[in-house]
Amino acid sequence: MKSIFVIGGGCWGATLATVYAQKGLKVVLYEPVFENYKYLKLYYHPKFFNYVSIPKNVNITNDISEIQNNDIVFLVIPSVYVLTILQKIKNLNVKEKIFVSCVKGFEPKTFCRITEIINKVLNIQRNKIFVLSGPSHAEEVALGKPTAISLAGENKELLVKLQKLLTTKNLRIYINTDVVGVEIAGAIKNIYAIAAGICDGLKLGNNAKAALLTRSLKEMILIGTHFGAQTQTFFGLSGIGDLLTTAYSGYSRNRTFGEYIAKYKNVEIAKQKIHTFIEGIYTVKTIHKIAKKYSIDLPIAEEVYKIIYKNKLPELSIKSLLSRPLKEEFSWLKRNE
Amino acid sequence: MKSIFVIGGGCWGATLATVYAQKGLKVVLYEPVFENYKYLKLYYHPKFFNYVSIPKNVNITNDISEIQNNDIVFLVIPSVYVLTILQKIKNLNVKEKIFVSCVKGFEPKTFCRITEIINKVLNIQRNKIFVLSGPSHAEEVALGKPTAISLAGENKELLVKLQKLLTTKNLRIYINTDVVGVEIAGAIKNIYAIAAGICDGLKLGNNAKAALLTRSLKEMILIGTHFGAQTQTFFGLSGIGDLLTTAYSGYSRNRTFGEYIAKYKNVEIAKQKIHTFIEGIYTVKTIHKIAKKYSIDLPIAEEVYKIIYKNKLPELSIKSLLSRPLKEEFSWLKRNE
Repeated sequence: MKSIFVIGGGCWGATLATVYAQKGLKVVLYEPVFENYKYLKLYYHPKFFNYVSIPKNVNITNDISEIQNNDIVFLVIPSVYVLTILQKIKNLNVKEKIFVSCVKGFEPKTFCRITEIINKVLNIQRNKIFVLSGPSHAEEVALGKPTAISLAGENKELLVKLQKLLTTKNLRIYINTDVVGVEIAGAIKNIYAIAAGICDGLKLGNNAKAALLTRSLKEMILIGTHFGAQTQTFFGLSGIGDLLTTAYSGYSRNRTFGEYIAKYKNVEIAKQKIHTFIEGIYTVKTIHKIAKKYSIDLPIAEEVYKIIYKNKLPELSIKSLLSRPLKEEFSWLKRNE
Repeated sequence: MKSIFVIGGGCWGATLATVYAQKGLKVVLYEPVFENYKYLKLYYHPKFFNYVSIPKNVNITNDISEIQNNDIVFLVIPSVYVLTILQKIKNLNVKEKIFVSCVKGFEPKTFCRITEIINKVLNIQRNKIFVLSGPSHAEEVALGKPTAISLAGENKELLVKLQKLLTTKNLRIYINTDVVGVEIAGAIKNIYAIAAGICDGLKLGNNAKAALLTRSLKEMILIGTHFGAQTQTFFGLSGIGDLLTTAYSGYSRNRTFGEYIAKYKNVEIAKQKIHTFIEGIYTVKTIHKIAKKYSIDLPIAEEVYKIIYKNKLPELSIKSLLSRPLKEEFSWLKRNE
């Protein structure tokens, strides 16, 4: 394992390329959108790297076939583009590569997890596919602030090797064999980040936000265990950890989107104001369908769905949540055991 | 159960008195410090209630013997004063009362939990002693912002009755039978709130703070389960919920104390700046002793202890935490099973 091919020159892709080039690894950064690629070629990031420059030893390309000359592939693109990209590399020589998914969502057409889609479309063995997820705002990682994330995979031996390879002075990797849990946690936390943003926008206070996130964690576990995830994963970096950074940070797009919904009382205006890709909008639709199909009780996700897709007023959603019957705190866990 | 006697006219005591008087319950608020009592008599709180007034149907007293005329006693004082107060009421007729502890700390001389001390000193049955804990900044509750907290007790029937009695329009009570867990979570979270404040003061960023809190939750579980608490409680309102409000809020004294330590590089100056009671200072000492005695690995609590009691520089503590060997994320859980 000597060289890394990063697919996607967005904030997180460019940051990972930067961090590993700084560590001395051979890194190629592939950007599919030609306009963005032109910026990156100047070692300048169109949206983000105006205060951190991409090191000159990152090889920037617009040619996907270069994937063949590298060992590890990082997939760092929005979920909606995953199928298109995988179709592009399907006929290239990638069978023996290691794939690391950094995508935080489900594939929106098939409702599949991203590692499942990689496995199906590219016919790559599941034990060569990994997930990198955790509380890691790109901006902070790029500036060298201390960060800890989870790397999940089925192959323990390879996991330990990748942990050593991918840990840097300020980016600590914790390993985890629960691929399903880490992957699902990273995806669905965006729903609850939107809810947290709505809570901020309505100025409900810190108590309400903490209660909301606590009950969100409960819903995340219900969804995760439905898919076979381990409960403990949701109490780790890729679960509550990632939820916290997203829910309490000014950087988060999903949280900010929620805040704008509450502020402008209009989802379309909120979308326009953000003017970038919001994973949670797609994820909540996927989860809504799954919850309905399998009768999973997800009151918070359901209210976020209604706000985004049924124009429900956020204030009314809060009322609905607060007027639910009084409960034992862990009755849901008992039902789930 | 008709009347409430609140011991302690601090922010939280005065808020609880206000909320339940507003609900129409008979409430007596007892304040032991005469100077504060004088303010409260004017329905004006010396530190806090300058924007919310205490309702006139709260009966304010400086006479502890009035406890005898009420059914439910809320104990809402700093942990260091608990023994003194209990000694005061020991010879009064309180055997049949229901006690609700809102104290977030251990009794510092005996290292006992507060419900244990109530049981021992007053000889009141354990199934009549409850704990109220969760993400509840008094300021927000007083302003009627939505809040959800845990009420823990051994007596399920009484728990359900108290849940109905103590739930108001904006303050939702969730019940839990894990008294040990709810009580310990509320106490030890202050240690990690100080750590979060140090993280803020050093401007380590959101990623680091989320990772710190995730690993703090791990330590909270290790401490809790040592005492016989249930792991799940730490994932609820009194665990992660309370930790979040404390760690992310400008209101929290413990968090602000941590921030000042990082800012002024001096614990004594930080104490003077806060100029109020910081539970975490005592709790971390208790936990340090317990961890040493029973060999519990609590790296974050240990660094907070060293910073406060051994003048260790916060920057060096962070270095110590970041240079620990690379791990599996849940290896501690396996060891603990």
